[in-house]
Amino acid sequence: MIVVMSRSATEENLKNVEKRIESFGLKCHLSVGEQRTIVGVIGDKKKIGELEMGAMEGVEKTVRITEKYKLVSREFKPENTVVDVRGVKIGGEELAVIAGPCSVESREQLRETAEAVKNAGAQFLRGGAFKPRTSPYDFQGLAEEGLKLLREIGDEYDLRVVTEIVDVNDVELVSKYADVLQIGARNMQNFRLLQAVGKGNKPVLLKRGLAATISEWLNAAEYIMSEGNDDVIFCERGIRTYETFTRNTLDLSAVVAIKEQSHLPIIVDPSHGTGRWQMVQPMARAAIAAGADGLIVEVHPHPEVALSDGDQSLKPKHFKAMMEDVKKIASAMGRK
Amino acid sequence: MIVVMSRSATEENLKNVEKRIESFGLKCHLSVGEQRTIVGVIGDKKKIGELEMGAMEGVEKTVRITEKYKLVSREFKPENTVVDVRGVKIGGEELAVIAGPCSVESREQLRETAEAVKNAGAQFLRGGAFKPRTSPYDFQGLAEEGLKLLREIGDEYDLRVVTEIVDVNDVELVSKYADVLQIGARNMQNFRLLQAVGKGNKPVLLKRGLAATISEWLNAAEYIMSEGNDDVIFCERGIRTYETFTRNTLDLSAVVAIKEQSHLPIIVDPSHGTGRWQMVQPMARAAIAAGADGLIVEVHPHPEVALSDGDQSLKPKHFKAMMEDVKKIASAMGRK
Amino acid sequence: MIVVMSRSATEENLKNVEKRIESFGLKCHLSVGEQRTIVGVIGDKKKIGELEMGAMEGVEKTVRITEKYKLVSREFKPENTVVDVRGVKIGGEELAVIAGPCSVESREQLRETAEAVKNAGAQFLRGGAFKPRTSPYDFQGLAEEGLKLLREIGDEYDLRVVTEIVDVNDVELVSKYADVLQIGARNMQNFRLLQAVGKGNKPVLLKRGLAATISEWLNAAEYIMSEGNDDVIFCERGIRTYETFTRNTLDLSAVVAIKEQSHLPIIVDPSHGTGRWQMVQPMARAAIAAGADGLIVEVHPHPEVALSDGDQSLKPKHFKAMMEDVKKIASAMGRK
Amino acid sequence: MIVVMSRSATEENLKNVEKRIESFGLKCHLSVGEQRTIVGVIGDKKKIGELEMGAMEGVEKTVRITEKYKLVSREFKPENTVVDVRGVKIGGEELAVIAGPCSVESREQLRETAEAVKNAGAQFLRGGAFKPRTSPYDFQGLAEEGLKLLREIGDEYDLRVVTEIVDVNDVELVSKYADVLQIGARNMQNFRLLQAVGKGNKPVLLKRGLAATISEWLNAAEYIMSEGNDDVIFCERGIRTYETFTRNTLDLSAVVAIKEQSHLPIIVDPSHGTGRWQMVQPMARAAIAAGADGLIVEVHPHPEVALSDGDQSLKPKHFKAMMEDVKKIASAMGRK
Repeated sequence: MIVVMSRSATEENLKNVEKRIESFGLKCHLSVGEQRTIVGVIGDKKKIGELEMGAMEGVEKTVRITEKYKLVSREFKPENTVVDVRGVKIGGEELAVIAGPCSVESREQLRETAEAVKNAGAQFLRGGAFKPRTSPYDFQGLAEEGLKLLREIGDEYDLRVVTEIVDVNDVELVSKYADVLQIGARNMQNFRLLQAVGKGNKPVLLKRGLAATISEWLNAAEYIMSEGNDDVIFCERGIRTYETFTRNTLDLSAVVAIKEQSHLPIIVDPSHGTGRWQMVQPMARAAIAAGADGLIVEVHPHPEVALSDGDQSLKPKHFKAMMEDVKKIASAMGRK
Repeated sequence: MIVVMSRSATEENLKNVEKRIESFGLKCHLSVGEQRTIVGVIGDKKKIGELEMGAMEGVEKTVRITEKYKLVSREFKPENTVVDVRGVKIGGEELAVIAGPCSVESREQLRETAEAVKNAGAQFLRGGAFKPRTSPYDFQGLAEEGLKLLREIGDEYDLRVVTEIVDVNDVELVSKYADVLQIGARNMQNFRLLQAVGKGNKPVLLKRGLAATISEWLNAAEYIMSEGNDDVIFCERGIRTYETFTRNTLDLSAVVAIKEQSHLPIIVDPSHGTGRWQMVQPMARAAIAAGADGLIVEVHPHPEVALSDGDQSLKPKHFKAMMEDVKKIASAMGRK
Repeated sequence: MIVVMSRSATEENLKNVEKRIESFGLKCHLSVGEQRTIVGVIGDKKKIGELEMGAMEGVEKTVRITEKYKLVSREFKPENTVVDVRGVKIGGEELAVIAGPCSVESREQLRETAEAVKNAGAQFLRGGAFKPRTSPYDFQGLAEEGLKLLREIGDEYDLRVVTEIVDVNDVELVSKYADVLQIGARNMQNFRLLQAVGKGNKPVLLKRGLAATISEWLNAAEYIMSEGNDDVIFCERGIRTYETFTRNTLDLSAVVAIKEQSHLPIIVDPSHGTGRWQMVQPMARAAIAAGADGLIVEVHPHPEVALSDGDQSLKPKHFKAMMEDVKKIASAMGRK
Repeated sequence: MIVVMSRSATEENLKNVEKRIESFGLKCHLSVGEQRTIVGVIGDKKKIGELEMGAMEGVEKTVRITEKYKLVSREFKPENTVVDVRGVKIGGEELAVIAGPCSVESREQLRETAEAVKNAGAQFLRGGAFKPRTSPYDFQGLAEEGLKLLREIGDEYDLRVVTEIVDVNDVELVSKYADVLQIGARNMQNFRLLQAVGKGNKPVLLKRGLAATISEWLNAAEYIMSEGNDDVIFCERGIRTYETFTRNTLDLSAVVAIKEQSHLPIIVDPSHGTGRWQMVQPMARAAIAAGADGLIVEVHPHPEVALSDGDQSLKPKHFKAMMEDVKKIASAMGRK
C-alpha cells in the first residue's frame, strides 16, 4: 500500500501515519517529493490488507498495490486448474459445452432439448429448477421436481447436470441431483451462499455479477476456495452498461483478464451476455477465440412458448450450427 | 404490452402472434402501418406480465407498457406510507436520521457514538454485526455479540436500532435485537432473503443494488410486501458508474422517481453514496432538498482506526455540523 | 508518479526504469518490499506529466499521484473565482439563473419566455441557435437568425444571453451576439473548439461530457484557461449510466468535487440532467443545497409543441414555482 | 411511434394528442385497454421523426419504433458495402489490417514500424499527426510534418495511410496526404466535422464514441452519408464502463449489431479497446471470430519510449505473432 500525504500535511500528521503503520507490525518507507511525501507500506500482505489509512488527517489518498485474494491467483498456483466433473474436464484441452433451457418446464421439453444438445456435442445439460426472477409474479421454477427431471434426463443422455442454487439451505438438496452448482449473477456477492457451496463437495460455476469488477469476482471465488472447495469455474455473462441494444454487454476481455490473474477455468454465456438469440453464434465463436474454456448456452425446442428467456434461446437447429462454427474456431486455436 | 412485427413478417407470423396472445385470455388490437404492423395486447395486467413474445417468428421487438409490481405502487395506494418504528415515524413530516459506525467494534466505540448522535438529534442507531465484505479476509463483524451491544446501547440512549441481515436463517435472531432490518446493496436481489424478511414482522430498510434500476428496486420491495410485510423503506446509496472520484454516484433523482412511482418512504445514504467524508454534509443537504424522508450516515468517534469504511465516516463534531445544516434545509422544505 | 515493479522484475529491468526516469531530469526513490519494489518519481510536475513508464519491461503498473491541470486547480488559486458577465456575477453570493427554450424558434416564443423568466428572477436568457442533434434530420436551429433574436430579446428584458457554439469558425460570429458561449456535452473534448473559445474574450459555460470524469472535465477547462481565457463556468448536466428511468443521471456530488478541486464556479442543469420536467424542481433545490452557484433550466411557453426537448421543458408557471422553492433553499444556505 | 396515455388522461387530452398527430400529416390508431389508451402513429417515417409528444398533457410516455437513420441501414441497402481504398478493399472477403504507432514521432520510428507491419501482412499504415489529448500539456503531434512522413513512408512500403482529423478546417490538408480520414471517439458527435468529411472525397473511419449507443453511432454515420460520402467504415474501440482492469470495455457484440443494422463494414481496435498490450492478440482473434472486417492495431518499435499509448502498443514481434493467430481464425471463418 502507498499512502499519499496531502500538500498541507504537517510533521505530526506524518508521525501519526508512521505510528499506525508500525502498530500493525509493518514498516514505512518515505519518499519526500517537492510537493508531497509518499509513504510506502512494507510487510506481510495479509496485514496490509487489514490496514485502512484513508481517514487519517493529512492523508490525501491511499493506493493498494496488491490484491487481497490468494488461493485463486496465478501467482499462488501458476499452472491451469482442470476441474473434473465425473470424468468430463473443464479447463483442459477439450472445450466444455453446457446447454439446455433457462427453466426446466416438463419432461418432454427437457428430453427433447437433451437429445438435441447431446447430438450436437454438448457434455453438460443445464436447466433452472429455482429461478431468481425480477418480479415475484414471474415463474419461479419447478423446485425439487425440476431437479429430479434434470438428473433423470441427464443420466438418460449421459450428460453432466448444471443447475443454479439460490438458498444457503439447499446445498445438500441440490448436490443430491446436480453435478455442478451454479451461483447466479445476482448472488455473486451473497457471501453466505458462497461459503455454503465452499463447504460442499460439488464443483461451482460462479457467474460474474451484473456490475462486478474483475477484482470482486476473484474475491468471490476466494470465498469459495477459502472454505476448502477448489473446483471453481468462472462464467462471464455480460455486464450492465449504458447500451440497450443488447441485454448486457458481453465483456470478452474478462476471459483474458481471468486467465492472466487466475489458474481457474472460465467459460462464457453468450445467451445472457447478449439477450438476443441471433447474436449467440458469433459471440460463441468470439468467446472461444478469446481463450474461453467452454460455453453455456440456452437451448429450447420451442423458444416462442418458453416460460422464461425465450428471446435469447437457440432452437436445436441453430445450436447445431453454432457447434459446427465453434469447432472450427476451436481447431484453429489448437483445441478440441 | 406492444408487439412490433418486423417488416418482413408474414400473414402467418401475425396469425400465430394473435393466437398466442388469445391463448393467455388476452385481446389483440392491430395497428397496420405503412411499414410495420403493431399489435397492442389488452387485458389483465398479471397475465400480460407472464406473456413472452420476443422469440416468435416475425416479431421485431416487444415493449412493456406496465410494470409488474403492484403493492408498492402509488397507483395502487396514492397516499404516502408512514412506517412506525416503536413510535418513531419514517416518511412523515419529521425527518428520520439513522447514524452510527459501519461495524460494531466495542461497547466503548458504540456508546461514544450513540451519545454523540443522540445529542445531535438522530433517532436511530446503526451498526453492522454481520458485515458482507468483498474479501473473506476482511473483518466480518461481531455477530450476535454485536447485536447485543446494539440493543443495550440503543436502549440506554433511547435510539431505535437498525442493522443488516445477510442470512435467510437469521431473521429470528436479528429481529430479537433490532428494530429495523437492513437489506444491503449486494443482497437487493437475494430473493430468498427478501421473502424471509417479508414473512417477518420488522420494518425493512431496502438499499438499492449497486447497479439496480428503479424498476428492479421496486420489484424487490414487491417481493417483501407480497409476503405480507408492508413496512418497507427504500434507501438510495449510490450506483456504480464509470466515475472513480467518488466511491459510487449518489443518484438523488432516484428519490424523486421513487416518490413518483411509490407510496413508500425513501432515505439517503451519503456516506456510501460518496465514499468521502468531506462530501457527506453537502450531499445530506441535497438529499433532503430533493425530498428524502431521512438519512443514514456513518459516524465513528475515531474514523482513522475504524475496522471498516473509515474514509467515509464522520467524526461526531462533523455529524453535529451536518445536522445543523440539514435542519435549515428541512425547515426551508417545511419539514422538521 | 509511482512505478510498481512486478514480482518477477530483474535487476536490469529496475536499472532501465531508473535510467529512463533520470533521463527526464527526475529523481527516483526506491521502496524495496518483500515481494515488490516500488519506485517513487520525484521532481517537476510538468515533466512527470510527460513520463510514460507502463510499457517498460518489469513494470506492473504506474500510479499517477498528481493531476496534470494547474490553472483551474484550487491548489493554484485558493479563493473562489467570480465571473462577471457585464455586471451580473456567477460564483458570488447571489445565485445565477439561466433560463429559456432549448431552441430559438421564433420572436414570439422567445419574447414570451424571456418575459416569464425575467419576472421569475432569472438574470440570463438561454436558447440554441446551432443545435447539435443526434440525427441529421432533426431541427438544427435558426443559426444567425436565432442569435439576432437572442440579442434583441435579451436586451429588451435586460437579460444576459447564453448560447451554444459548435464550430471552431463561429467564435467571432457568436461572440458578436452572446454574452456567454456554451460548450455542449458532446464537444467537451473537442479540443480545437476549447482552444478557440480560450482565445476569445467571452466567458465560457463548459458542460460536462456524457461520460466525462471529473479529471477530464477539469483538463478540458485547462485547455480554455491555458489559452488565456480565465472566465470558465462548469455545468453539471447528468452523466450516462445504465439507468433508463431518467435521460441522464444527475451527479450532484460533482458539484462538491469541483468546488474541492477548483476555484471556478459551477452551475447545474436539472433539465438535461433528468430529461423529465416533473423532476426539475426538486433537483434544482438539491443542486443549490449541494452548493451549486446557479442553474440552467429549459423553459418553453408551450412545451408540447417545442421543436426539441419538450419533455424536459418547464412551463412558465412551473418555472416560477421552482424559483420560489430555490429561493428558500438559497436563503437556508445563506445565499441570495 | 407509440404514444401511451396515462391512466388519468382525459378525453380532451386524447383529442389534443390526435389533433397534433394529424397536424403533422400523420394518422392515429387507437388501442383502448382496460387501464390505458395507446395511440399508434402511422405514416411517413421522416415526419414521425420530427414529432415530439412527450410534453403533452395526459401522455405518460412515447416509444419510438423506427430509427431515424436511413442511408446507413441494411433495410435501405441489403448487400454489404465494400470500401475501396486505392485498390485495397475493406468489407470484402479479405481482412483489412491497419497498424502503426499512436503518434508519428520521427521518420526512423515510422519507417521501422512500416517495414515490420508490411512484412507481417498489414495493408494500411496508421499514425497520429494531430492528437486529441486529455491534457493541453501532453504531446499534441507533429501536424503537417507528421502527415508528410506518413505519405512518404506509406508510399515507400505500398501501405495505404490512415490518420485522424480533428479540425473542420483540415479536411483539404489531411486529404492531401491520407487515404482514409479517421474520426476519433471524442469527435463522434462533432457534427460539423462529420459534415465536413461527408463533403470530402476520402473514405472515413468512424470510431465509436466513449459512451455512444449503437443507434447514436449509426446516426453519426448518417451525418456523413447524408452529405454524399458513402465510404464509411465503423470502428469499435471499447466503451466506458465501471470496470477499471481494462482501459475500456471492448464491446464485440457491437460488431454483430452493426452487421445486422447496417451494410457498412466494421473493424475493431483491440489496442484502445483494452489498453493493455498483452490483451491485444486474444481480443484481435475474438474480433475476427465475431465477424469484424479487419483490425486497427497500435505498433511501436520501442513502446517503452513512445510519446503516447506505450502501454497498449505491440512490439513488431508481437504484432507478427498476432497476425499469425488472426490468419488461423480468418481461415476458420472462410476469410483471407
